[in-house]
Order: sequence, then C-alpha cells, then structure tokens
Amino acid sequence: MATVNRKIGILGGGQLGRMLIQSGIDFNIPFKVIDPDPSAPCKDLVDGFVNGNLKDFDTIYQFGKDCDVVTIEIEHVNTQALRKLEEEGKKVFPQPHIIELIQDKRLQKQFYQKEGIPTAKFVLTENAADVAAQADFLPAVNKLGREGYDGRGVQVIRSEKDLTKAFDQPGLLEKLIDFEKELSVIVARNEQGEIKTFPVVELVYHPEANLVEFLFSPAQISIEVEQKARALAEKVITKLGMVGLLAVEMFLTRDHEILVNEVAPRPHNSGHQTIEANITSQYEQHLRAILGWPLGSTRAHTPAAMVNLLGEEGFQGEAVYEGLEEVLQKEGVHPHLYGKRLTKPFRKMGHVTIVNESAEDLKTLAYWVKDKLKIKA
Amino acid sequence: MATVNRKIGILGGGQLGRMLIQSGIDFNIPFKVIDPDPSAPCKDLVDGFVNGNLKDFDTIYQFGKDCDVVTIEIEHVNTQALRKLEEEGKKVFPQPHIIELIQDKRLQKQFYQKEGIPTAKFVLTENAADVAAQADFLPAVNKLGREGYDGRGVQVIRSEKDLTKAFDQPGLLEKLIDFEKELSVIVARNEQGEIKTFPVVELVYHPEANLVEFLFSPAQISIEVEQKARALAEKVITKLGMVGLLAVEMFLTRDHEILVNEVAPRPHNSGHQTIEANITSQYEQHLRAILGWPLGSTRAHTPAAMVNLLGEEGFQGEAVYEGLEEVLQKEGVHPHLYGKRLTKPFRKMGHVTIVNESAEDLKTLAYWVKDKLKIKA
Repeated sequence: MATVNRKIGILGGGQLGRMLIQSGIDFNIPFKVIDPDPSAPCKDLVDGFVNGNLKDFDTIYQFGKDCDVVTIEIEHVNTQALRKLEEEGKKVFPQPHIIELIQDKRLQKQFYQKEGIPTAKFVLTENAADVAAQADFLPAVNKLGREGYDGRGVQVIRSEKDLTKAFDQPGLLEKLIDFEKELSVIVARNEQGEIKTFPVVELVYHPEANLVEFLFSPAQISIEVEQKARALAEKVITKLGMVGLLAVEMFLTRDHEILVNEVAPRPHNSGHQTIEANITSQYEQHLRAILGWPLGSTRAHTPAAMVNLLGEEGFQGEAVYEGLEEVLQKEGVHPHLYGKRLTKPFRKMGHVTIVNESAEDLKTLAYWVKDKLKIKA
Repeated sequence: MATVNRKIGILGGGQLGRMLIQSGIDFNIPFKVIDPDPSAPCKDLVDGFVNGNLKDFDTIYQFGKDCDVVTIEIEHVNTQALRKLEEEGKKVFPQPHIIELIQDKRLQKQFYQKEGIPTAKFVLTENAADVAAQADFLPAVNKLGREGYDGRGVQVIRSEKDLTKAFDQPGLLEKLIDFEKELSVIVARNEQGEIKTFPVVELVYHPEANLVEFLFSPAQISIEVEQKARALAEKVITKLGMVGLLAVEMFLTRDHEILVNEVAPRPHNSGHQTIEANITSQYEQHLRAILGWPLGSTRAHTPAAMVNLLGEEGFQGEAVYEGLEEVLQKEGVHPHLYGKRLTKPFRKMGHVTIVNESAEDLKTLAYWVKDKLKIKA
C-alpha cells in the first residue's frame, strides 16, 4: 500500500456515514455520498454529495461507477445495482448478497437456523391472519420481514388481545425472550480473512421507542459469557463470509444462553463509544476492513457509557439543544451532534459518550446526561 | 447555550484547520475557511471554502463579515481587517492585538521582558551588520522579526565564522540556551477568564529542519518542573489576556530554570497527541475557548508519542506513503495524513500518534515508525 487515495462511495449520508467520513479524514480518504435527503448529515463534509434515491437501480449504479470501493451505512439500498458494480470489478463491501440476506429478517433467521447459530425460536408469517393463528406461540415479537429500521417494524405481541395490531405483511413471529441483558459484539473481517471483535457491550433499550437508550462498555458479564459472545460473533461473520463491520446484537437469557437477535453489516449504534474508549474506533475498523488494510486493535482503554440523544417527545421542528453547556462541564462527557436540522419525537439527533474509570459513576453520569440534555424545538 | 450554530471563520486551511474542523463535526459547528492554496487540506471539508490572500485587508474583512467568530490557524494574516471586524462587534479570537504581538518576535521578546516572564537574553538587530557587531554575544540564535514559520527564519550563529549568514532584516539575536529538554505547555482561556493547561510534553527537534520531530507525553520531568511550567504558561496567557489556545514552548535549562522560547496563539504541533491521549483534544479545547463554552478536562488518559511525518529529503512531487500498512499493524499507532497532494523535503505531510502505557515502548515505537513510514514522490 503505497498510496491511500482509493475513493469510497457511501450509500446513505446519515450519522453513521458522517462519523465514517470524520474518521477517514485521518487517512485522507476521498469519499462520495448519496442520500435522498438533500440536507443529510454528511452533506457538507464531502466534495461529492449526491442527492438521490438509494433504491433506484440507475442512480446507485451511476453513483458507484467512479468509486473504487462502495459501502453502505443503511441496508435499504438497491442491491441489483451493487451486484452489477461487483460483477464489473468494483469492491462492494459488505457484499451485495449479504446485504440482501440482512434486508430480509426472514432470510436472516433462516440463515441462523441453517448454520446452527443460536437464535430465538420463530415462525414465518405472511399476513395478520397468520400471526393471529399463532396464539399458542405468544408472548412473541412480530417483525416485518423488510424495511424495518430504528425500531420501526418491530412490536411485541404479549397476548391474544395484542393480535389486532399484527403486521399484515410478510414477517415473522419470534419467541419473546426473557433476557437478563442485551449484548452487542462488533466484529470486523477484511478480504484477507483477518477477524477482530470488539469487547462485548451492554445495551439498555428505550421501552417505548425500541431504540438503544444507554450503552455500557464493558458489559458486566463473566469471562465465559464474554468469550462465548465474541466467538459467536466471529462465527456469524465467518459463516457469512462478509467483508466489513458487523454488529451482532444478542440476548443473554436468564439461564445464560446467548441467542443472536439481529445483525447489521455496518458501523452501529452499539459501537459509538469506541471513538473515545477504544484503541481503534468502529469507524476506522470498517474503513480498514473494506480497504483491505490490517485490522486495528479493538482494546478498550477506558470504560465508557453512551447515551443516545433522541428528539424529545412533544417537540417537532428546528432542533434546539438544551443543557449542552452544563454537560460540557463534566469531565469525560463528549457529545456528538449529528447536524440534523429538524427534530421529532425519538429521532436520533446525536449521542453522548462518557468515559470514566468507575462503572458506578458511568451509570450515574449517563442518567444525569439523559436528564440534562434535551433536544427540543 | 441553547443552539450551537454560530459560524466560525478560520484564517488558514492547513492541517491545523483541518483537525479543528474534524473536531467541530461533533458539535455541528458550521465553518468557513480561507487559504491562498486552492487545494489546501481543508478544502473539501467545508461548504464555505474561500481561495484568497490572508494578508489582503479587503479579502479578510469580507471573509469575516458573515462569520460569528473568526479565528486563525496561522499567524501571518491581515490584522487590520481583524481589528475592524472586532470593532464591528465580531468575536475575533485570538484578539488581533495579540496576533500582532506574536507576528513580531521582537515585540514578543520585549513583552516577556516587560512582564517578567523568564526568557533567553536577547538583543534586537536591524540588519546583518548589527548581528556581526555582536560577536561577544555568540553562540546565539538569529531570528527574523517577522514571517518566520515552521523552522524558517531561525538559524544558529555558533561562532564568528557563521556571521556571514546573518539575516539582513530586522530581527534579534538570542543567547543559545544549553537546554536539558525542550518542553511545551498548551493553555486555553475563554472569555469568562477560565484557564486550563494541558500536561507538559517534551519535544525533540529535527537537527536540520528546525521542526519538531518527536513528542513525548507526559514529559519525563519532576513534579516541581511540571508545576512551574504550567504556572508559567498560565502567567503568559493571563498577561496577554488572550482568548483561545496558546502553545508555550519552553527550554528547561541544565540548572532547571524554565525559559519561554516562543508562543503560538492557536492549536499547535505539540498538541496533536491530545486527540488520542487526552480527555479533551487541543482542537476541541480551542473551539470551547473561542465559543465561550466551559473548558474541557485536559487530563491525559494514556501516555503518548507523536512523530511528525516530514517529506523525505530528495523527493518532490505527488506524495506516496511508504510503509503505511506496516505501521497500521501495530497496536496504538494512529496516522493522520494531512491531504497535501505534493511533498517536498521537510514539508509537514502528516503525523502519527502512538499510545502505549510504557514510556520505553513509546520511544522504541516512535523511532520505528519514523524509520518505516516515508513520504516520497
């Protein structure tokens, strides 16, 4: 590797793309970005911002033609165009067939089943009537097969009376897991087959929005669980044969079983804290993986918490950040604002990483930040 | 502080501006940049890049008019325009009169003298004949009063036979200090008068290019020297009444005296390692200071070394990075390439930060990186 000017095209210009570009500045990587939102968070950070439809074959094909490597920061993209680019010799990471598998939660679950990857029991459903016929399977989670994102397309069906809200489209019904913790492992793999996992983190979800609200790194788990979770993430990426970064979300059940919940083939909400807390950030790791560079050390040099900044309920419009100056006064509190002009309830507007040696203080600070910093309009 | 969209204009679009913008992404700060080089390192990172002369009154005045805050990443700018902007109510940090003082090394030295800030003995010289008349003062360093930068405009006059190379312009002759170490302290001050210093670092200069070649943080010094150096930096910024970031370069003499060598009123080469190694980076600290935000914790969470990547001697033209993949394999080795297309001998093309708990390993790694990673053409 003598020069480092291969151009990376990113499908999607949201916060994940933004932090990827921010990391790529260190390596002088030229980026191109496409997003349907003309004022997407990446817009001003690249010379080549394209406003276009991620699902349109021609748009994506043309976008990718002058890139050396094409990657994604959202799964809902036209994979036919990516397949054609791949056939024509472009590097497309994650590979199009993997994006297709992950776009469809039904295929994803069938893949786990086939490969012997532990996951919650499920049944495929084609419509609401199918779901309604599964009263015996409850309590369960009803997921849309396609197009779910950031908590959309996922709902809990606790009992028969919830059956009225069942999705009337192809999806699945998955046993509701009585878990002790939700964990996530981010794993990377490059073209040479080198694999590295980040330490396991612990996620706390927002009860209503079905979004990660808090994250704690490292997870408070035994060494055995840590090793098992990391090995499982490695198994998933190996079985996929994927190149790039893969976030593997898992349930740790009350009887200490680990089940894979879902995966995302890109930088992920559960890896934001790696910017401040680990030797290599998940963003740099994704770049290293898709460029065929050696993967970086994933070691966490300091414990961290992450708080998602969601748009406050009851507010919609031009975002106003309340309490920012107060949180900036605390040592180790590092906000990341995504540059979204408009807020709405539960929209991901930013996140805050907190680094601190004490797990106790981290928890206290995380709740304090959540309480102080509000995104209103 | 409810919103954070005050626009910052940066005079200079080099690597310091680039890392300032990279840090500002976290706070969604809109930037505007002006630089005489149409392909300056900042060019693609901002929506508002202006190609223009930093010394031209009208250019700078017009540039600053639609900014909320104007700052610099190089001192050689038109300060009359900055004074006018300041009079019209713009925030200009560092303040124009301080930039003027620092633009002129003669005024700078006189300031230290007047304020009782320890510094090497000096005599002002108007031309080469003046220097030649000071044979008794040798060995000494001959500095140009104005326009010196990155090692230019500074030379050692060891003995009478060196006098032929004396600068024939207004400058000064400063006693050559037989120092034990060169130290640097970066200190920040906001408009409210809050002051914070970063831990003292140790600099190793390139013998020929008069540029920082290596940096080690923390400096291997006694607690007494650490405290004295930090107090001295605080004294300098307080006496200046400056708002922003000030790098104070110092000599630790063999008899443990500390003398101020030079200052730079902006992010500085001796603070690059704060990105990876400290709770708050010098770039974020500069932004906090000039925006009137609370200053961040300067604590170093890990020891670090920094290696400047200078253009290799004997090569000029399109930059090629040799050995990058090899250095990327080492844990804790983090390159920053500045995106300069053309290299020439000793041009600052990038830097590498190395984090490691052992001071011994840091030294070994720093020399190894220096040896492996070469910028050729």
